[in-house]
Amino acid sequence: MGKFSFLTGCLAAALGLTIALGLVILFATSHMRNGRSDHEEKDLLTLEDFEDYIMNNVDPQSIRQILRNLTTLPHLGGTAEEWQMSTLISDTWRQQGMDEVHMVPYEVLLSYPSKEVPNLVRLVDQFGGAAWTSAAKQKPLYSPEESNPDVPFTFNGYAAPGNVTGDVVYVNYGRSQDFETLSEKGINLEGKIVIARYGRIFRANIAQMAEGLGAVGLVLFSDPSDFAPEGPEFVYPRSSFLPPTAAPFGTVKLVDGDPLTPFYPATKSAFHIPMADAPIPTIPVQPIGYEDAWQILSRLGGPPAPGEWQGGLNITYNLGPGFSRPGWKLNLDVNNNNTHTTTYNVIGVIKGRVEPDRYVLLGNHIDAWIFGGLDPNSGTAAMLELSRVLTNLVKEKGWRPRRSLVFCAWGAEEYGLVGSLEWTEQFGKQLADRAVAYLNVDMAIEGNYTLRTKSAPLLYQVIYESARRIPNPDPEEAKAGRLTVYDTWALRKPDPVKANSPLMQFIGSGSDYKGFQHNLGIPCMDTRYTHSDHTLGEPQYHTLYETFALVDEIYDRGFHFHKAVTALWGHITLRLSEPKILPFSLDAYATFLSRASDNILEKYGDLISSQNITMDYFTAAVQKFNSTTVAFNNSIEKLDLDNPLAVRHVNDQLMMVERAFIDARGLPGRPDYNHVVTAPSKNDAYSGTAFAGLSDTLCSLQEAPDDLRPNLWVTFSQHLAAVTHVLETASRVLTDDLW
Amino acid sequence: MGKFSFLTGCLAAALGLTIALGLVILFATSHMRNGRSDHEEKDLLTLEDFEDYIMNNVDPQSIRQILRNLTTLPHLGGTAEEWQMSTLISDTWRQQGMDEVHMVPYEVLLSYPSKEVPNLVRLVDQFGGAAWTSAAKQKPLYSPEESNPDVPFTFNGYAAPGNVTGDVVYVNYGRSQDFETLSEKGINLEGKIVIARYGRIFRANIAQMAEGLGAVGLVLFSDPSDFAPEGPEFVYPRSSFLPPTAAPFGTVKLVDGDPLTPFYPATKSAFHIPMADAPIPTIPVQPIGYEDAWQILSRLGGPPAPGEWQGGLNITYNLGPGFSRPGWKLNLDVNNNNTHTTTYNVIGVIKGRVEPDRYVLLGNHIDAWIFGGLDPNSGTAAMLELSRVLTNLVKEKGWRPRRSLVFCAWGAEEYGLVGSLEWTEQFGKQLADRAVAYLNVDMAIEGNYTLRTKSAPLLYQVIYESARRIPNPDPEEAKAGRLTVYDTWALRKPDPVKANSPLMQFIGSGSDYKGFQHNLGIPCMDTRYTHSDHTLGEPQYHTLYETFALVDEIYDRGFHFHKAVTALWGHITLRLSEPKILPFSLDAYATFLSRASDNILEKYGDLISSQNITMDYFTAAVQKFNSTTVAFNNSIEKLDLDNPLAVRHVNDQLMMVERAFIDARGLPGRPDYNHVVTAPSKNDAYSGTAFAGLSDTLCSLQEAPDDLRPNLWVTFSQHLAAVTHVLETASRVLTDDLW
Repeated sequence: MGKFSFLTGCLAAALGLTIALGLVILFATSHMRNGRSDHEEKDLLTLEDFEDYIMNNVDPQSIRQILRNLTTLPHLGGTAEEWQMSTLISDTWRQQGMDEVHMVPYEVLLSYPSKEVPNLVRLVDQFGGAAWTSAAKQKPLYSPEESNPDVPFTFNGYAAPGNVTGDVVYVNYGRSQDFETLSEKGINLEGKIVIARYGRIFRANIAQMAEGLGAVGLVLFSDPSDFAPEGPEFVYPRSSFLPPTAAPFGTVKLVDGDPLTPFYPATKSAFHIPMADAPIPTIPVQPIGYEDAWQILSRLGGPPAPGEWQGGLNITYNLGPGFSRPGWKLNLDVNNNNTHTTTYNVIGVIKGRVEPDRYVLLGNHIDAWIFGGLDPNSGTAAMLELSRVLTNLVKEKGWRPRRSLVFCAWGAEEYGLVGSLEWTEQFGKQLADRAVAYLNVDMAIEGNYTLRTKSAPLLYQVIYESARRIPNPDPEEAKAGRLTVYDTWALRKPDPVKANSPLMQFIGSGSDYKGFQHNLGIPCMDTRYTHSDHTLGEPQYHTLYETFALVDEIYDRGFHFHKAVTALWGHITLRLSEPKILPFSLDAYATFLSRASDNILEKYGDLISSQNITMDYFTAAVQKFNSTTVAFNNSIEKLDLDNPLAVRHVNDQLMMVERAFIDARGLPGRPDYNHVVTAPSKNDAYSGTAFAGLSDTLCSLQEAPDDLRPNLWVTFSQHLAAVTHVLETASRVLTDDLW
Repeated sequence: MGKFSFLTGCLAAALGLTIALGLVILFATSHMRNGRSDHEEKDLLTLEDFEDYIMNNVDPQSIRQILRNLTTLPHLGGTAEEWQMSTLISDTWRQQGMDEVHMVPYEVLLSYPSKEVPNLVRLVDQFGGAAWTSAAKQKPLYSPEESNPDVPFTFNGYAAPGNVTGDVVYVNYGRSQDFETLSEKGINLEGKIVIARYGRIFRANIAQMAEGLGAVGLVLFSDPSDFAPEGPEFVYPRSSFLPPTAAPFGTVKLVDGDPLTPFYPATKSAFHIPMADAPIPTIPVQPIGYEDAWQILSRLGGPPAPGEWQGGLNITYNLGPGFSRPGWKLNLDVNNNNTHTTTYNVIGVIKGRVEPDRYVLLGNHIDAWIFGGLDPNSGTAAMLELSRVLTNLVKEKGWRPRRSLVFCAWGAEEYGLVGSLEWTEQFGKQLADRAVAYLNVDMAIEGNYTLRTKSAPLLYQVIYESARRIPNPDPEEAKAGRLTVYDTWALRKPDPVKANSPLMQFIGSGSDYKGFQHNLGIPCMDTRYTHSDHTLGEPQYHTLYETFALVDEIYDRGFHFHKAVTALWGHITLRLSEPKILPFSLDAYATFLSRASDNILEKYGDLISSQNITMDYFTAAVQKFNSTTVAFNNSIEKLDLDNPLAVRHVNDQLMMVERAFIDARGLPGRPDYNHVVTAPSKNDAYSGTAFAGLSDTLCSLQEAPDDLRPNLWVTFSQHLAAVTHVLETASRVLTDDLW
């Protein structure tokens, strides 16, 4: 079935438009006076007091112990083991003394490998015999738990069950431009099994494109050139590099949330669309280790792949189709089951003192593909440690946050943000009315090289300020005079535009903030300690080898990086929960929009003006936002901070800014994305392109055949008008103007 | 073109489900303490003081003079004359001293008759000659301005230009059941010109159904049995009954707002859909007087119409098709133009003292089909008088409302709520965040018999309380001991369910509250003094004879009824703007939902259970809302009214209730209606059916052929789940629960 349409190759363009942003921090000074807790508070603790408390009380050994407890057994979303972890979290929060702790169930469609019959890739010789068969499971290499019999057979979530045999084509990273290269070379994918190396784009996009081009199966592997640059000897457990047996799991569903209840929560009363309409692939997809990929690629016939397509296996990568030995085929046998099951979120609340109906939300997911040493449990360990310290602050000092803190542990994130998205669907009205920000930490660490942060522009200042307060967990860096997390971040991930400032990455998608940022317009951030650029991603990501030992012995001996991220998360939380005036970076948003607008005009201005379409209203709206934010910031200077309703008025306006960018009608052809500025590109859910509805359409226009262009121009004009309206709204919500 | 789909005959069912509601007023006592202005106010004026001020200062002679000024010349939407009236209103508000007064333009598609070539209906004899021709304009009968040469040729707004000739069929009121009766009698409408009497359903629905059945033209008239029950001698200007020459204007566009900019405001940067996609009829439609209708109907052949179809003309009404004289046909020649033009809203603000960012909105439209003596200018005269009195209160007493008052004069309402809908599209985000209520008075009077009020249940209490405070403007009624507006209302329009209580009518649609109630979820009311049931509607409605004289000499000598409505509007406004706690009738909403739920189960319970579809979640959600509102009301009793943020928290929850019923995805097949409870039935925009998405679908199911039923059941199940979710949300917003 061709439910996935063919997508044109706009990734390069999308990356070209990626907004790498620093910002000028004008706002900070004027608001620091609000950093103090307000008059209602008896013991006048300053923000610095709170921050010191956090720094003095976050305990690396405590984090280590939590991580150990969270990584003892495989706990896929929707399983009894996930429920066991949910219970561990809810019990912890109750013991810590949170005001409210609740389990929130959703009945959803998840996907599991068979417990009896593994998913296998086979080489079939000319006589129909199996010349070679892939590994059913990843091979235990180090930690005792790797041999746990409950480790599931290797699989991709929601990959269709099926048994297909055919010729193989190597498609490089499976990006749109890769498929175009093959098309130019006259290599047709109809009826073929495609093999792609993983790591450049979201795997669900690869599956979608392969299916759209007629492929009958997809095999994914991680190439050693991307994940084991020091060779097959220097890999886990000797290093953090990828061993040959590692086959990363992951979902291949493209639309987020429960696939059967789009737009509405998967509660007991939910309506379920027919399975045939679910946005999941109809072809089998299977990950394998690179030692297994060698078995396939080393036998591939056809012309050699282009130079850039050559990888780290000691062979020449050919394109196919088919093997060099006549009559040999590949067989792909996937035995996954789509299963109706229940997944649970855990919600814990520390009620606010002054504004209990304003929420600062913190969250991470519960489920892991296997043990989840990094993903998600490094983040969950940080969250449980932070909640321990903050509830202690409540108990010891009688403190309460000015605004409520809502801690969220999400079910079934790995299946495509299922628990968090169902929750934002269920509680969207309340959240849109009351939420200040959602702060996501998925992996607290996926390395120890530098901080990396994705964020809505409104939160830039708060994050920068907080990062400046966190001592550097890297002794070498501290010795070099870079005393804070911020300093190393600015050095190792600098903003290419603004000197001496760390890079703030586009919020895009990829973790549980999606429903908050992209459907509700609640400003979000996602931060972690990351690895260097020597690998394409954290090598053990989603593999068996993402163990406690990987963290404890390789990445974070002593758990100092975990402590840094925990404290950072706490600082950001307090800087959002405590000040009377929300410290939102309006100027950063204005800068962000100006740059994004400039990017579009630079790249596509001629193309657009060739159609006599004016961008004047759009650019005027961007400029208007700029001038409005300046005026608004000035007006705050005169605000009577002792007038609680006047303060609330200003905060409500600030909260409305991100909401203003939400278009209830969604982006062109993408009703599940509503934020017209920060939605990720449709061609790669991981990449960051501002105004994706505009830039995706313009990119498609550049490549579309003539007969499709008129409709694409209509789409562009229509969305341009919607974006302009939304930009004007973002200015107007900062005023009381109804004209 | 068949862009209008055929609609099944569900009007009777719709009416059967109409919710005629009174309510128990439990809420009043607990909140009267909040009627007093709060501590921030130096001069402690009570709500009674304000109300007395209004009653003492609203001046009937002032209203009379304003009405005179507003009714001097025809002022259709989008014309220079409408702009002249807009200017009159904005100048008035500026002179009165409002804090802000602004014109808000929209560039929209409106419709006008030709200035040179009239729209005509002709009898064509067997030789092709015109045996008779209808009147081009309505004949002046009394007031000098009726002879104004600028009175437009008779027309229906957005009726397609066209010149068609064919056989005539009489279709009674043009309801779906009428068309079904014809179908049962084997009378086909394909290629026919249809003549319908007007007054039972919205004329755009008649046009839609006629077009859907293949009719090539539609002629509308008002039957004397419905509008001139005392015979043709006792009509305007002798009485308020309809003269034979009266041809009521009106729009035949079904979707509200500018037809070319759906969902987005018609600003300069708007995207316009192609004209061919505009939701306007493709057939000509034309209204005529009943003396002209006689010319057609008296000559009609075919079988006699059923008894109930016989009207007040002294003939036997036959069905047709065609005339009794062989070869005679009807010719319909419509020369309207669809025109791009600008219409202006006027927005005036009295800023609030304590909560300037909470809005109580009052509004009415500016444009009139001709002079608009009743519609809209009786309402606009009331609004300008009320704003005069309230701005005087500001000037004389230094008073300011606790919340802001926003006065709205809308452009081009008669064309389908164009100005107000574009405005709610443009400012929807701010309004959904800040608006307390929208109070519409279109016609302040369309009679002097009793009050009639359409309202969202949340406003019931405020309206009842206010009506109890307004002295009866009818001296006969006062003499009979019914001292207040409420007393006559309870007598003459009683609630059929709750004894001694006046009927509160379903908010449905039909005036400028649509965008507020049905797209944004802002509770609305629409009130007026109305006529008795002797006629089907106010007879002169939308005709030439809706003059100042009609008001001044027939309906409201002395303008006492105008004063009563003005004062009532003022009282309702103050009861919403002044109390610390919003006096919303949660219990009325709970009762309303219970009754509506019971109605559906009584009427369709067996049908639903025949499909094994459970209504249990739905009814549980209704019950949950009931119990939640009781708990919420109890919790308010304990609220610290001196804690401004705690008060704001409760008010925000109250404001969220109506918002909770908004489903961003709209009703089944009706994306322009989002309120799942109060949307009007799709078969008649004027009627009132709670849960219209459910009841319309169930009604269709009863009548649908077998092959369409499965899809309709899917629609029903899907919407039932959405409604249940929305009901659960309405309960949860009254809590801080996120689980």
